[in-house]
Amino acid sequence: MTTSDHSGEISMTTADTTPEELDRVLAAATAAARPFGELRPARRAELLRRVADELDAAGDELVPLAQAESHLPEPRLRGELVRTTFQLRLFSEVLEEGSYLGAVLDSPREDWPTGARPDLRRMLLPLGPVVVFAASNFPFAFSVAGGDTASALAAGCPVVLKTHPGHPELSRRTGEIVADALRAGGAPEGTFALINGDEAGRGAVQDPRIRAGGFTGSLRGGRALFDLACARQDPIPFYAEMGSVNPSFATPRAAEQAADVAAGYLGSFTLGAGQFCVKPGLLFVPEDRAGEFEKALVDAVTAREPAPMLNDRIETGFWQVLDRLTEHPAVQVLARGERTASGPSPTLLRTTAARLREHRDELVEECFGPASILVSYTDEQDLLAAVELFRGELTATVHGEADEPLTARLCTELAERAGRVVCNAWPTGVSVTHAMQHGGPYPATTAGTTTSVGTAAIERFLRPVCYQNAPAEVLPEALRDDNPLGIPRRVDGQLVLP
Amino acid sequence: MTTSDHSGEISMTTADTTPEELDRVLAAATAAARPFGELRPARRAELLRRVADELDAAGDELVPLAQAESHLPEPRLRGELVRTTFQLRLFSEVLEEGSYLGAVLDSPREDWPTGARPDLRRMLLPLGPVVVFAASNFPFAFSVAGGDTASALAAGCPVVLKTHPGHPELSRRTGEIVADALRAGGAPEGTFALINGDEAGRGAVQDPRIRAGGFTGSLRGGRALFDLACARQDPIPFYAEMGSVNPSFATPRAAEQAADVAAGYLGSFTLGAGQFCVKPGLLFVPEDRAGEFEKALVDAVTAREPAPMLNDRIETGFWQVLDRLTEHPAVQVLARGERTASGPSPTLLRTTAARLREHRDELVEECFGPASILVSYTDEQDLLAAVELFRGELTATVHGEADEPLTARLCTELAERAGRVVCNAWPTGVSVTHAMQHGGPYPATTAGTTTSVGTAAIERFLRPVCYQNAPAEVLPEALRDDNPLGIPRRVDGQLVLP
Repeated sequence: MTTSDHSGEISMTTADTTPEELDRVLAAATAAARPFGELRPARRAELLRRVADELDAAGDELVPLAQAESHLPEPRLRGELVRTTFQLRLFSEVLEEGSYLGAVLDSPREDWPTGARPDLRRMLLPLGPVVVFAASNFPFAFSVAGGDTASALAAGCPVVLKTHPGHPELSRRTGEIVADALRAGGAPEGTFALINGDEAGRGAVQDPRIRAGGFTGSLRGGRALFDLACARQDPIPFYAEMGSVNPSFATPRAAEQAADVAAGYLGSFTLGAGQFCVKPGLLFVPEDRAGEFEKALVDAVTAREPAPMLNDRIETGFWQVLDRLTEHPAVQVLARGERTASGPSPTLLRTTAARLREHRDELVEECFGPASILVSYTDEQDLLAAVELFRGELTATVHGEADEPLTARLCTELAERAGRVVCNAWPTGVSVTHAMQHGGPYPATTAGTTTSVGTAAIERFLRPVCYQNAPAEVLPEALRDDNPLGIPRRVDGQLVLP
Repeated sequence: MTTSDHSGEISMTTADTTPEELDRVLAAATAAARPFGELRPARRAELLRRVADELDAAGDELVPLAQAESHLPEPRLRGELVRTTFQLRLFSEVLEEGSYLGAVLDSPREDWPTGARPDLRRMLLPLGPVVVFAASNFPFAFSVAGGDTASALAAGCPVVLKTHPGHPELSRRTGEIVADALRAGGAPEGTFALINGDEAGRGAVQDPRIRAGGFTGSLRGGRALFDLACARQDPIPFYAEMGSVNPSFATPRAAEQAADVAAGYLGSFTLGAGQFCVKPGLLFVPEDRAGEFEKALVDAVTAREPAPMLNDRIETGFWQVLDRLTEHPAVQVLARGERTASGPSPTLLRTTAARLREHRDELVEECFGPASILVSYTDEQDLLAAVELFRGELTATVHGEADEPLTARLCTELAERAGRVVCNAWPTGVSVTHAMQHGGPYPATTAGTTTSVGTAAIERFLRPVCYQNAPAEVLPEALRDDNPLGIPRRVDGQLVLP
């Protein structure tokens, strides 16, 4: 949390934020909202680059902190820091390009069919202060300076960051660097602050000064906060990304390459000790190839070294879900993971599509950790019936030949149920790009019309305003006749590039 | 509601929809969702034009029905029908232009900083069946074939239309024409249906087959349905437009033209018997000009003829709110409207900015009908303090000179609180264009990040999907290399026009 000492500097701690401290943080964020939102996009782009530069420069300090608190290996954390600062810089490009402002100009038209059309100009403005809940499994990329923070700051919204208790020191130090970089770059005081503790987080979601929320974490946690946001006297958008089962499917022809598909699958579900919200939790294979998959997988799974999980709470939760699955009568254990001092070794389970349908509610559940279920199907009909089990997934994966009709059929079905459809690859390793979609229908997220990764994530923190008949003196630069920002705009219905 | 007789034709009635009938309607909408959503955009454009043509052709039948049920005058209803069919045709253009698909293509890049970038292609797909709640005050433009229906059909979503009980026969007949036109144009059976009665409406919002909701009406009704949508096991977006107070402000220099400003104000707040959600409910004028405004307004208000309201329920609600306002000790009655057999005559009230601040909760309330409050302010500080009373408005209006600093200051303040800022004009008469924004922070709507009028309304009914590494056989046309739809796309970060 953030307090001002008498020098006026902001200091951050790992202690729980008191209600009085929260009130000061929110007051500062509110005061910062207009001046920060009114900065020219190119100025905010500079600020984001400065934050990125400072974080990169602090890598040798931050990565060991992250290692100590997350048990993740150094190369992974170095790569994640690169991803985090790249993300900030990519949003700088988005700001400079300017399409994100959604500028639309309609000139007056006497002959408009609905009556004389006035001068109308529409653009997107920042929503105001946003609370962001950090996740534990990406201590950089989905935490203090992660995607939600980057996209909200890019949009022009001050960020109140609820830290994750899984990496308190890293959070504190990252928060200081972000706040210092913003301050040094001339951002208004209050543009960024940390808060600690569940009570402060809930308080922020319910406070009228907060205008939107972002969250990455569990279904239970995300839903509880979403419910608070909706129950406010003035409901606010709450963008919770809550993970999913991420089913994957091998068509009969893809399954002819059982060894290759199995190797990719194993690599994907055990990556990072299975602690990714896009981990493939199920692989459907044809019954007549199931033996080959088992053969290719069982020894390989058993041979995998255990890997430490992020923290005890996550490991406890993992074993709870896994124990329920392994003890379920419809499930066969192909390779039983061990609880070792250095973490769990991977587990592979087996069932059939028919049993999965019969026991959907017990078996189709996110198991956050190194475990997955191999599911055999008898024929195409059996497989397509199983697809109906899934309604809201971050990803769905199809291994199939391009000219095999089942491949396209599966992709069509799955596009209705998932935010990203992956073909002949694996869902882990979410790239940060313009076309990325990280979201999906509930329960993958509370807002399947949005994404939390990729440049479109900025759209979550903007709202449209139309200026009617406004003199030039009143108009934001994005809407002035001479287009001083040099951005793409829609003018009288036509998209015009600068 | 919709039933199939044995010829397979659909017939519509005005009777309340039973749960069994609702189930059939929702099953048909669900079956229609994929084939309707998969139609090429240009095919759906044809369907919308066909609906528009059939409605235009039926004008001589529909307008008298609307007159009888809404008490609105014929010219207004003729104009509203033009607006309704224009809106359908404007969405046809949106479909043909194709930007609404949000197509983004990122090609593979080995050197991508976050690791090799795969082939990623993102576009927007229809959400699935949508329930739309019709409003009473626009029996064409916000009812059966209104903006929510047009934008949802354009997006590719089947529409289950909950009729408004204020115009049952018009609804039934309009519904028949829409369904017949869609069927004749080759749309899948189930693409459009009517349901009647609050219970069926609530049932639809809570049914898992419904993927989003649209609503125009009262705060109480909209909030209750929004709460149902959020409380579902799988929450869905619920876009409720619930009206607002629409404050208007005259700066000291604008107030020098008191007679002109007063005339425009009177015309706007009495238009259509004040039954517009953008009716200006308050006009702020400088204290030292208040006498001139009173002089210009009182006789003119008193001289206005009464006009019938839409129905008894709306008139009863109007008098309830108005009686509370007129009896409030902080309010002075300048011109008292009469209850006559032909409806209420207009009412003008008066208070001060200071009293309005003191009694915000009692005085700042939508009064749906021909009444408004003249509010005097002492100085700029008093005026700006009053602006803080408003948090969520569809519109806010500023009368001021372009070179008067207060004009820009007010517009900046109001852009944070309203969806549309109107300068030196009046908010009634919402044009249907690309730049229009009809929405605003809560309580104007439940989704201030969206609009229910203008071409951007289509965005409410779409969700993004990313295809990773998908072969051409799998990709929707919008994302294929050769751009067969000829639409604007973002390719490797650059906007490319066809």
